[in-house]
Amino acid sequence: MGLVYYQPVELTFDSCDRTSHVKIPALLADCLMVSTKQSEQLGRGNDYLMERYGLVWVITDYEMTIHRLPVFGETIKIETEALSYNKLFCYRRFHIYDQTGALLLDILAYFALLDPKSRKAAVIPDDLVAPYRCPFVKKIQRSSKLKPLETPIQQTYPVRYFDIDMNGHVNNSKYLEWMYDALGDAFLGKYRPTQLTLTYKKEVPPGGSITSCHLLDGETSYHEIMSNGQLSAQAKIEWQPISIESEKTSDL
Amino acid sequence: MGLVYYQPVELTFDSCDRTSHVKIPALLADCLMVSTKQSEQLGRGNDYLMERYGLVWVITDYEMTIHRLPVFGETIKIETEALSYNKLFCYRRFHIYDQTGALLLDILAYFALLDPKSRKAAVIPDDLVAPYRCPFVKKIQRSSKLKPLETPIQQTYPVRYFDIDMNGHVNNSKYLEWMYDALGDAFLGKYRPTQLTLTYKKEVPPGGSITSCHLLDGETSYHEIMSNGQLSAQAKIEWQPISIESEKTSDL
Repeated sequence: MGLVYYQPVELTFDSCDRTSHVKIPALLADCLMVSTKQSEQLGRGNDYLMERYGLVWVITDYEMTIHRLPVFGETIKIETEALSYNKLFCYRRFHIYDQTGALLLDILAYFALLDPKSRKAAVIPDDLVAPYRCPFVKKIQRSSKLKPLETPIQQTYPVRYFDIDMNGHVNNSKYLEWMYDALGDAFLGKYRPTQLTLTYKKEVPPGGSITSCHLLDGETSYHEIMSNGQLSAQAKIEWQPISIESEKTSDL
Repeated sequence: MGLVYYQPVELTFDSCDRTSHVKIPALLADCLMVSTKQSEQLGRGNDYLMERYGLVWVITDYEMTIHRLPVFGETIKIETEALSYNKLFCYRRFHIYDQTGALLLDILAYFALLDPKSRKAAVIPDDLVAPYRCPFVKKIQRSSKLKPLETPIQQTYPVRYFDIDMNGHVNNSKYLEWMYDALGDAFLGKYRPTQLTLTYKKEVPPGGSITSCHLLDGETSYHEIMSNGQLSAQAKIEWQPISIESEKTSDL
């Protein structure tokens, strides 16, 4: 466990989907904004990381449990702490609360250091993480491995100009958008996610197109994003009919 | 002229494009967040508008002059005021400044009231705009009319799930993304916009696809977004080679 940092975040019109619920990619962007603020407060911002070590943080995995997705206009509290680190990963938890103090989402993110020139992972320097006061743990925790999909449903998307971020590759938030989109409006109108595991395998360059592959097995969906014949990202999402959620939250 | 309201906004990683400059659609979303805050402060927020009149604000036109596009990490000041209104439109100006006080963008937005059920425009009630202290002006100002494009270059985009907002139609910010995208990476890497006129003609429903049409005439691009054979949005953008800008801003 490390130092805890939090910030209130108001959910804007543009961060919410047609059902008024926050878009998970927008929520993850807010989480990263909060962890970046903590890093700056501790003197370990992105500028320090680049000037001192020539490195950038990247996320490799997300594991999240979604109790309730907050809606447009709500002010949520995003709380974060670096839990532990080893040679290759720093594990950071985000707890998102509503104004009554109820836990909305519990997100574990795997951070790794990348050399932006060689695109290779770098060992995490002790000095870099010391201010967060989280323990070094030898064991390298990996997220649960997802099997390759056999005969998935495939949908192709051109990579758009605004999909690319300052790293010169597709922004992480886009993968989840392509995964969602492949499920279609009819499904997304009836189900809400309760558990989500997302793993980034390989960056997608500008231009060209990606293929969003998926299989639906009961109330679990499995996803792969393929780019240039290679696996770029994988995910497993567990869903629940929205009616159950409405009954649950009707007392709020 | 009316009451002035402003707010500082820090530009996040996700609001910036591959060149580190803010994405104009993200900047417009920030502008609307600021004007919504002013409305709430004056007791005329979106909830009041819906409960009292059953209406929502929509933007029909943007006219902007771009002196410099701010970059990732900058904290800008977004200042807004309702300039005047008539039966059908409220004209609102956004001035965006950098930390030295230099004017970055000057944006004029045309707001109109929409009945979300009938999708028809509504007359602006005096009571609704009184707190902004802007004058009623009889003359209905319209943005300069753009001619239909003859033999444009066409590109088709499927409408994605996350393109749709809480109004149940494509979010306004997407039109500009499709217009930009049609110009291609090579052009966008060499030019920056200096003037932009954008007019929304018709909402785009979920599903299906849109066609982004464009013509480039020297350093001016003309755009049309077509949906179901109808014109949904038009724009004219004036561009400048990035090298000229670099020379201009090298003293900053």
